[in-house]
Amino acid sequence: MTSCTFCRIATGEIPALKVYEDKEYVGFLDINPINKGHTLIVPKKHVQWVYDVVDQGSYWKIAQKIAKKILAELKAEYVMFVTWGLEVHHAHIHVVPRYENDHHKGFLDWEAKVTVSQEEMKEIARKITIIK
Amino acid sequence: MTSCTFCRIATGEIPALKVYEDKEYVGFLDINPINKGHTLIVPKKHVQWVYDVVDQGSYWKIAQKIAKKILAELKAEYVMFVTWGLEVHHAHIHVVPRYENDHHKGFLDWEAKVTVSQEEMKEIARKITIIK
Repeated sequence: MTSCTFCRIATGEIPALKVYEDKEYVGFLDINPINKGHTLIVPKKHVQWVYDVVDQGSYWKIAQKIAKKILAELKAEYVMFVTWGLEVHHAHIHVVPRYENDHHKGFLDWEAKVTVSQEEMKEIARKITIIK
Repeated sequence: MTSCTFCRIATGEIPALKVYEDKEYVGFLDINPINKGHTLIVPKKHVQWVYDVVDQGSYWKIAQKIAKKILAELKAEYVMFVTWGLEVHHAHIHVVPRYENDHHKGFLDWEAKVTVSQEEMKEIARKITIIK
């Protein structure tokens, strides 16, 4: 059994509020969001870095779709993409909605998490889920 | 004449230390780097947001190539991708090298620029330039 959290989310062993899934990738809400609607997109196959994913096109196209869904459904002002990689050593794109006058005030403060109830998380997931 | 800085870099009207160029995209060193080798990749056609670029695959594949070149040539520990978009309103991917024990210490501090001489900037550009 793998100890990698994102591998275990991909298989369904660890529950997550999924907003996207296909054969290769899964998208789900970050459980420690830095803004409402903060989503992670991961390849199901374990690779460490986003740039290790061979097919960048199919991967980022999902980020693009989620971004557009977030703009439409959550009334975000714009959306940021961030790849860091030290939190969990399994490739993940952070899709981060930005709202007018949000608490980040400029660039992202990664420590400035927002508190969102489980009920609201479910509602957000429902709104931005993309059915393939 | 457009007033967009990145459109003018794409046409060559404003000089930049280019590290990549093809028919659709140009990559060049950020003149206010937050780490040595900080590179921007922009579509030549003016669109506002990274998610407005239709062909995400061809766009991000360049970021991937530059990242791998940075890892090999600049001895970066890893590379971050960031899209923000409020600095210049023309789509751009930030490719940000991270070095062991660099001054960011964790997530990025966007205000923590590094001072790099023009000579060293040229040397960095020479090292990470990708010839198509």
